[in-house]
Amino acid sequence: MILEVAILNIKSGMSNDFERAFQQASSIIASMPGYISHDLQKCIEKKDQYLLLVYWETLKDHTVGFRQSIEYETWKKLLHHFYEPFPIVEHYYSVIDSSNKLSIR
Amino acid sequence: MILEVAILNIKSGMSNDFERAFQQASSIIASMPGYISHDLQKCIEKKDQYLLLVYWETLKDHTVGFRQSIEYETWKKLLHHFYEPFPIVEHYYSVIDSSNKLSIR
Repeated sequence: MILEVAILNIKSGMSNDFERAFQQASSIIASMPGYISHDLQKCIEKKDQYLLLVYWETLKDHTVGFRQSIEYETWKKLLHHFYEPFPIVEHYYSVIDSSNKLSIR
Repeated sequence: MILEVAILNIKSGMSNDFERAFQQASSIIASMPGYISHDLQKCIEKKDQYLLLVYWETLKDHTVGFRQSIEYETWKKLLHHFYEPFPIVEHYYSVIDSSNKLSIR
């Protein structure tokens, strides 16, 4: 399982519109092969900053399957105009969780 | 529920030592009042970068309860010397998750 992580900074005053658009966009990502779950989180300390977390079965499910899909074009149209600056997306895998066991890879 | 988020950059070559120390430190955080769960994630794209996610019942459980505790002194001794630069910690709350319902706060 892979975690996609992006810190999203939204143009000033557009957070409410962004949240509504993201709600619409959620159904796109949730329909993609390899999608597991997602969570859009809003920052307490920094106005207009969000954290997007998306769990995928594999890295390629996101980087190839989703990003090269027709659905991604709709996703971009719904969301990309809200971002300033354009976000850096990174991928992570869990090494130690609440079970406190070190994952072997 | 509040999500504590920190991007951790570990001094070059110390990632294995950090992971072992974090495993030891995990039991400290897991014993604190208001702690729900945590996950240490390792970045695929950036060497020696991690993402720490900790769910707390309230913001104060982290910022006051944990940070002003005796246990935090041990946490610091175990972990803080691995970080370069020292991480910025932020807090988030969920607005849209996989259920695709906008949270009302």
